[in-house]
Amino acid sequence: MPNLRIALAQLNATVGDLTGNAELVVEWTRRAAARGARVVLFPEMFLTGYPVEDLALRASFVEASIAATHEVAQRLDAEGLGGVAVVTGYLDRRPDLAPRTGLPAGAPLDAAAVLHGGRVVATSAKHHLPNYGVFDEYRYFVPGNSLPVFRVPLGDGEAVDVAIAICEDLWQDGGPVAVCLRAGAGLLVVPNASPYERGKDDVRLELVTRRAREAGAVLAYCNLVGGQDELVFDGDSIVVTASGEVLARGPQFEEELVVLDVELPGAEGGDAPDGPVDAEDGTEITIERLTLPDLPLPAVTAGEDEHGPFWPRLDDRAEVYAALVAGTRDYVRKNGFRSVILALSGGIDSALTATIAADAIGPENVYVVLMPSRYSSEGSVTDAEDLVKRQGIHGRTVPIQAIVDAFRDELGDFPADGLPAENLQSRVRGVINMALSNAGNHLVLTTGNKSELATGYSTLYGDSAGGFGPIKDVFKTLVWDLSRWRNEYAERAGATPPIPVNSIEKAPSAELAPGQLDTDSLPAYDELDALLDDYVEKDMGSAELIAAGHDPALVERVIRLVDLAEFKRRQYPPGPKISPKNFGRGRRVPITNAWREPSPR
Amino acid sequence: MPNLRIALAQLNATVGDLTGNAELVVEWTRRAAARGARVVLFPEMFLTGYPVEDLALRASFVEASIAATHEVAQRLDAEGLGGVAVVTGYLDRRPDLAPRTGLPAGAPLDAAAVLHGGRVVATSAKHHLPNYGVFDEYRYFVPGNSLPVFRVPLGDGEAVDVAIAICEDLWQDGGPVAVCLRAGAGLLVVPNASPYERGKDDVRLELVTRRAREAGAVLAYCNLVGGQDELVFDGDSIVVTASGEVLARGPQFEEELVVLDVELPGAEGGDAPDGPVDAEDGTEITIERLTLPDLPLPAVTAGEDEHGPFWPRLDDRAEVYAALVAGTRDYVRKNGFRSVILALSGGIDSALTATIAADAIGPENVYVVLMPSRYSSEGSVTDAEDLVKRQGIHGRTVPIQAIVDAFRDELGDFPADGLPAENLQSRVRGVINMALSNAGNHLVLTTGNKSELATGYSTLYGDSAGGFGPIKDVFKTLVWDLSRWRNEYAERAGATPPIPVNSIEKAPSAELAPGQLDTDSLPAYDELDALLDDYVEKDMGSAELIAAGHDPALVERVIRLVDLAEFKRRQYPPGPKISPKNFGRGRRVPITNAWREPSPR
Repeated sequence: MPNLRIALAQLNATVGDLTGNAELVVEWTRRAAARGARVVLFPEMFLTGYPVEDLALRASFVEASIAATHEVAQRLDAEGLGGVAVVTGYLDRRPDLAPRTGLPAGAPLDAAAVLHGGRVVATSAKHHLPNYGVFDEYRYFVPGNSLPVFRVPLGDGEAVDVAIAICEDLWQDGGPVAVCLRAGAGLLVVPNASPYERGKDDVRLELVTRRAREAGAVLAYCNLVGGQDELVFDGDSIVVTASGEVLARGPQFEEELVVLDVELPGAEGGDAPDGPVDAEDGTEITIERLTLPDLPLPAVTAGEDEHGPFWPRLDDRAEVYAALVAGTRDYVRKNGFRSVILALSGGIDSALTATIAADAIGPENVYVVLMPSRYSSEGSVTDAEDLVKRQGIHGRTVPIQAIVDAFRDELGDFPADGLPAENLQSRVRGVINMALSNAGNHLVLTTGNKSELATGYSTLYGDSAGGFGPIKDVFKTLVWDLSRWRNEYAERAGATPPIPVNSIEKAPSAELAPGQLDTDSLPAYDELDALLDDYVEKDMGSAELIAAGHDPALVERVIRLVDLAEFKRRQYPPGPKISPKNFGRGRRVPITNAWREPSPR
Repeated sequence: MPNLRIALAQLNATVGDLTGNAELVVEWTRRAAARGARVVLFPEMFLTGYPVEDLALRASFVEASIAATHEVAQRLDAEGLGGVAVVTGYLDRRPDLAPRTGLPAGAPLDAAAVLHGGRVVATSAKHHLPNYGVFDEYRYFVPGNSLPVFRVPLGDGEAVDVAIAICEDLWQDGGPVAVCLRAGAGLLVVPNASPYERGKDDVRLELVTRRAREAGAVLAYCNLVGGQDELVFDGDSIVVTASGEVLARGPQFEEELVVLDVELPGAEGGDAPDGPVDAEDGTEITIERLTLPDLPLPAVTAGEDEHGPFWPRLDDRAEVYAALVAGTRDYVRKNGFRSVILALSGGIDSALTATIAADAIGPENVYVVLMPSRYSSEGSVTDAEDLVKRQGIHGRTVPIQAIVDAFRDELGDFPADGLPAENLQSRVRGVINMALSNAGNHLVLTTGNKSELATGYSTLYGDSAGGFGPIKDVFKTLVWDLSRWRNEYAERAGATPPIPVNSIEKAPSAELAPGQLDTDSLPAYDELDALLDDYVEKDMGSAELIAAGHDPALVERVIRLVDLAEFKRRQYPPGPKISPKNFGRGRRVPITNAWREPSPR
């Protein structure tokens, strides 16, 4: 069987940065060509970044994307790379649809282009549009209805057929995968922008394997890398044969070129002619065939990758931690910041947040503020100072008591304790964080975890004030797990564990009132997190939750807390998503929600 | 031709309040029956409220909605109202669809039920799902594919046929309207949850008239009333004949029963049999016919409405003002607050916000805080005090200078002026607002207008801190217009104009630095607002904006300001939407957006 060398360029695009993303296509095609690749695959919407959201509806942006795609094709050719077939995602539009109610303005397409010989020789667009979880694609795109099959000449009269599908086209039944089988393509290349979720790598491997079988083709799955707003893309590109053999698996969370040879059947065409065929999903898809001219290829100048096309896999905690680091690094960088600032209390949440930040952008770019009050324990201050020393980050102390007293003096009859007094302290700290952020141009990181955010155990405009929340989607029990794991990781490497053991082991407290403990207001975190997972992520109702073994009184209380905390969560800054629902765009319970499930008692 | 008395109950539902909404159905059916109505129409999703968002995906909520619908039917019958045909929106599900990727969990339906004789005798569901602007219905619903046609006996062997479509089914071509013509129904009733937008009433009238002609039927359009989160529903129910005669028009922004007699053709049926027919939109819709039994009707005990079925219309500014008042009133009420608090500066934004609040919930429930600093002018304090006296609201003064100084003492090397120093003052005010809110259980209103929010001319966690922003979607030039209008309205009624003339006429200033004016940082508001409208609402690109006559340098500057301000807007509280795009769910430019349009120079 003919042999085709392909390269999957799993890279980090930036939304809106057409120039920078185009530069990456040229640079990494050059690298792929140096290693002998004839077909190079880039991720979904790579030239625009993903997700572009409302930019898709702006005509000038769509035109700029189309122009950038043609310019990249020309530039590749001008640099002697025109003989390589480059498949990349970009934003296109359907010119034949008249405006009507319900149609996204300008009929934008989540498209892929084949660049060859200095031209855009074929285009297609995503057929299945996801509109669940973090996806809103019915708002932004119209579906594609074609399957391009391009024939790649290999010399000596040999050639192979390559078809293109895009991301969601794998997740739903029928469509391009079904038509690929009819078209008889030997290779199905699939650009993706598939966000990380914990454990999703296993789901994806099963899916890709199943679809390769259904397509009757080798399937090459190339995914984005890096953080974009709340999403983190984990790369983890995959190549699988129709019989289920995994030929390659890219690294997680790192930019990389996955190069390999795939054995493919010679090009013959399937049983379907050109023209519309049944896509087995209630629609028709048109097969569009073309043959690429046999252009000269650049010289092969680079050697093999030492580990071949298989990178080591991360275990569960390493994977989550890598997602948080990648999400934080890219949020800081893509928003034009160089440094971050955060409140360091001595507790575990801010300790882990500081550690993630130091791993993401270097300890020299991390600034922390210790803001003790009369309720701060001696141990908290010591633990915070210990962390500053361990990691070599910048520490500064700003006591808050005099400021709190100044507020109290002007407010006159303000209560001395209770929630208003606790919130006041937290908000004074928020103002100090923001003041130092404004003066020093640091991005403020919030330190709230998912258990707190879910139940509303935080102060609006206090600890929730900031630009990015690295552990927003991490339950408290996982905060502890990750902290222990990070220390163990350092120990294995012979380095100083970054987090003081005392921060991990002591009982959690907001320290906003004398002797306060989280457990005064909240159930034990192991119970709470299990319940939150079932209620928030699995959408169980109260009867189901009780049947699943949760304490009925706790179910009632937690449902109330979670529903009432929705407004606070809406004003919380973004953070890396590591679970399907989280509290971001995947969960939009109305702010005013009078519905309460029947009380279990 | 037979005569049918119908009633359109344009009412204010609350999302999630199944019990309260059901109570409204019973109460207003009773009133309609007392006036002789045989068919009573309630708005879309009335039993659950609209929009339910993620509640649609919670199985226990869907079941509760279905149960509530059956209970209402039984209750109507038990109260002697079983002979009246009641059509109401509710949340249902399709039981026949297996779970699959892309299908909303549980296959929820935006449904309508016919309640008669104590039972749910027919159901249908919205066929066209909107997924643009404020709508995300592909996320929450599956489309309906039936058209129920119920025959209402009128005695003496006479009967009329009534079909049901839902809201978006009018806005898109084909579907239930097309099938209604084939089915030969004489009356098409349409429950709606159509949010207010400025000028949308004229668009709706044209639409309803056109669809009545296409359906070949009298069209009765019943819309929700009141605020729900960011949406405001304006009522304005309409009845139009197939020949375009407007038979009724309900009031705007008020709960009301619109009762009228409509002449309808006797029931004969159209050319389409039961079963699937071509819906002229690429789908098929099944006509489902049933005949209601001739049950006894309750006695008619109430008289005609004095003004007949036509209510006076509001002019443009009255309409916008009414939307802001309704949105504010319902947000306060539906979130369980009784009172509001806001910062009163003496400027026009906070003056108008206080006035809207006083009109919404009564001056006795409005608390304002004057927070002068060393930069506050004498005039500002006087103007604020003048407004407090004119309106009889609660005023209190909390000077901020000592608190600002306390921050500066602890922050040491903090800059004495510039943005960080300005923001600090604004954030001190934000903390005071929130402290008083926490202590007194008032909802904090923010006072930012749309021109400021668009350009980022506000302080995160400062003036942007709060629970609801009544003028969030109102450009500055419209703030002035509405203020003048409100004063004129008072004068016409012989009342004291609520807003000090000086607040309207003086040059706007944030008063965060000596002698500061808005025009130091921003262009003149008439220029700015015109440009913002074209850029934000009309999505024009820079070339188009310049071609439309905007100053090229201003275009470049404002595009940059608007794009950079996205993060601040995301953390701004909700406010009543009066325009199609606003900056809420209808505009989701990514937070990190490296794309800038080509510079015009």
